[in-house]
Amino acid sequence: MRLVLASILALTAGSAHAMVVTREVRYKQGDTDLVGFVAYDDARTQAPGVLIVPQWMGLTDYEKGRARQLAELGYVAFCADIYGKGTVAKDTAEAGALAGRFKGERALFRARLTAALAALRSSPTVDARRCAAIGYCFGGTGVLELARSGADVLGVVSFHGGLDSPTPADGKNIKAKVLVLHGAADPFTPKADIAAMEKELADASVDYQLVFYSGAVHAFTQPMAGNDPSRGAAYDEKADRRSWAAMKAFFGEIFSR
Amino acid sequence: MRLVLASILALTAGSAHAMVVTREVRYKQGDTDLVGFVAYDDARTQAPGVLIVPQWMGLTDYEKGRARQLAELGYVAFCADIYGKGTVAKDTAEAGALAGRFKGERALFRARLTAALAALRSSPTVDARRCAAIGYCFGGTGVLELARSGADVLGVVSFHGGLDSPTPADGKNIKAKVLVLHGAADPFTPKADIAAMEKELADASVDYQLVFYSGAVHAFTQPMAGNDPSRGAAYDEKADRRSWAAMKAFFGEIFSR
Repeated sequence: MRLVLASILALTAGSAHAMVVTREVRYKQGDTDLVGFVAYDDARTQAPGVLIVPQWMGLTDYEKGRARQLAELGYVAFCADIYGKGTVAKDTAEAGALAGRFKGERALFRARLTAALAALRSSPTVDARRCAAIGYCFGGTGVLELARSGADVLGVVSFHGGLDSPTPADGKNIKAKVLVLHGAADPFTPKADIAAMEKELADASVDYQLVFYSGAVHAFTQPMAGNDPSRGAAYDEKADRRSWAAMKAFFGEIFSR
Repeated sequence: MRLVLASILALTAGSAHAMVVTREVRYKQGDTDLVGFVAYDDARTQAPGVLIVPQWMGLTDYEKGRARQLAELGYVAFCADIYGKGTVAKDTAEAGALAGRFKGERALFRARLTAALAALRSSPTVDARRCAAIGYCFGGTGVLELARSGADVLGVVSFHGGLDSPTPADGKNIKAKVLVLHGAADPFTPKADIAAMEKELADASVDYQLVFYSGAVHAFTQPMAGNDPSRGAAYDEKADRRSWAAMKAFFGEIFSR
């Protein structure tokens, strides 16, 4: 009985008294300096790692907030710097140009993603054998590219990601389980891209799940997208909550031992 | 401290010592005698109710097993008899004829579903204000018909259901939240039916979620479907587990107060 009680209290303490540590992390891809961000619970000795691939503006407070949330759940979370030198776009025009460059140069995109995954794996307390990646919008495209590169991650999660691929045959490289969380009313993802992705993943016998949330448009997890779905991108509290819960259930499955 | 411990032990006891009671229930729709089946935890004084609509063979041990599982989760579960007099098809030819009749006569189908919902609501210990419905294959069509009838249920869940509707304008009657759990490789559901359902629900601003499981075909929750996906219907342990978890999360949301 005393032992049972001690166990219960230890579990409670684990979630109630997370000691979340955050800091910038300098790393490189080739000659390019990159500035990532890590968050983890210092009270844990080993935990699964989650790479976060930012939306098209770059690594902002939004991704850092998600990293903190993941650290509070017990994971080591690492936000990737895709654009280099911690670049954050000053406006959507610049974001479009930056994201467009990497969507056009997928090999470079994959190199940046791979460097970020390596940086996650070298983080303190991370269990390098149990890693996954999540990404938002442009970063959703990113996690699928990471999977297509053959990266050794247990799972990837795309939140309202761009789902197109110039090289669908690369689906055969995918080792990760794939979870795609998408707005049913997202006007920025052509139906043809969704169908092509489903075919790519099915042809390669990838373990995937595809979820649509009614009424949700692009960027549904992001409060900075505002509240007007008629603009095609808007925050949706319900879809945000449901998709986060779906991600947690997915992690529960892929990280279990 | 003593209080906290007592609460923890009480929660544990609640799930560990479910006193599941099951029995046949005689009820009627018009002049037709119907034989349902109820399962509930006798240790609870009030619980949400879940209607189970059977697959095309009729009310079998499969649905009764699901009712027991739901009772162990704390719900009052009621299996509907759609065909009348507890009819179970002797083979798939008879099942096709029976299901075909009700898919052709949707008004009658709705009447049988409504009678079953009323029987659930009159079950012991059920919280009549918190009811939902789940259905398998033909029963998945059923729960959507129940929703389209304007039934006052908080949610409906279709497992590999037929998704066609002869009266898509009835989407406007739907009050329930809708969760559709589907095999990505189900050959028995035309893509056009899925697209039509999405349009019906979106046009009516219904709160819905649509989930596809890779590799899963028709009947993926049902061990009696065998293990050969090439036949178009087969059990899929992973999709079964994931879809059950999705249903539980959905119930957690719609039944919360």
